[in-house]
Amino acid sequence: MSKGFLLVLSGPSGSGKGTVSEALMNKRDDIVFSISATTRKPRPNEVNGENYFFLTHDEFEMMKKNGEFLESAFVHTNYYGTPKRFVMDEIEKGEIVLLEIDVQGALQIKKNYKEAVFIFLLPPTMDELRNRIVKRGTETEEDINTRFSNAFKELDFVGEYDFFVVNDEVENAVKDIEAIIAAERLRVKRHKDIKLSVMSKEGKKC
Amino acid sequence: MSKGFLLVLSGPSGSGKGTVSEALMNKRDDIVFSISATTRKPRPNEVNGENYFFLTHDEFEMMKKNGEFLESAFVHTNYYGTPKRFVMDEIEKGEIVLLEIDVQGALQIKKNYKEAVFIFLLPPTMDELRNRIVKRGTETEEDINTRFSNAFKELDFVGEYDFFVVNDEVENAVKDIEAIIAAERLRVKRHKDIKLSVMSKEGKKC
Repeated sequence: MSKGFLLVLSGPSGSGKGTVSEALMNKRDDIVFSISATTRKPRPNEVNGENYFFLTHDEFEMMKKNGEFLESAFVHTNYYGTPKRFVMDEIEKGEIVLLEIDVQGALQIKKNYKEAVFIFLLPPTMDELRNRIVKRGTETEEDINTRFSNAFKELDFVGEYDFFVVNDEVENAVKDIEAIIAAERLRVKRHKDIKLSVMSKEGKKC
Repeated sequence: MSKGFLLVLSGPSGSGKGTVSEALMNKRDDIVFSISATTRKPRPNEVNGENYFFLTHDEFEMMKKNGEFLESAFVHTNYYGTPKRFVMDEIEKGEIVLLEIDVQGALQIKKNYKEAVFIFLLPPTMDELRNRIVKRGTETEEDINTRFSNAFKELDFVGEYDFFVVNDEVENAVKDIEAIIAAERLRVKRHKDIKLSVMSKEGKKC
């Protein structure tokens, strides 16, 4: 029986972690997205327990106090967080849980749950990073500069991660992540009774 | 600049580590075999520094005393060992050094150099393990039983390894090992200045 694991895909704004996550999910059926909790109101089509776990401020704060989040953040006027229970349940079932998250969130998770597999997604060049930030198109020059400067600073945290993947082409990045997944599936520590499983096949003759 | 690593491919007698190592080496040109040192006399076609490093007993013992071996063993009347220097030099050059070794040797290396990547090769079933031991054909029934019983005991050490690979078909085992290699190549700790390498491409605009 093999346990799954939490795959933390992280990187600065403009590294393309959203696109890569989506491409990876579309390609495989052994990965589930981690579902976040939030205190913001559900939008018309959003379903509780599917898009988010929607919580009141009180509920969120109580869970936070009880250490029930792998990470959490207060953004504008609302809390967001990754509930530990959902992740752990899926891992026990053998699933890979994918969490796409910014660098600050990933560093929080590393403190709380270092058994996760941490991948830092890198832009191929700083020029390309800037292009990607600019292409979002909805921001002022000042916003762009701030994002770029933050992204630049966040590259310093790559040393805290297990693996790095250069996102030059989405396809290549997905292939690299799949190699990491294949290797992590072969990790001894995620398997119980490896010896027993060899012995139990075709009967024991020993 | 990326450093290589030591890949320790190990497993009990009959796991097929020799066949798998050879198939892996034939497929790739970024892997070098670790060269052992020995005190036995060279055979006619053997070249010093290629097949083995041939040493006198005194030389071997001196190196052993100085901690210059990753592991060593005394077999029948001769010493065999893995010189640290060769492995480290190749790793610095960025090479993957493949060491195919029995379980006892791998456990010694783990004590001396835990940065290596340890793979335990498993037979698909105990019946198949016995078949493979029998197929060697040069041994008595008693030898076969001893080998089988030792192999069975050695399976207990799988927990000391990083990864396990089931050798049902050589091709599949090689594919699994290649996934592990691909992932290990993406390990942050084997790379210096990841940030710098992103910055230096296409000039810095920051």
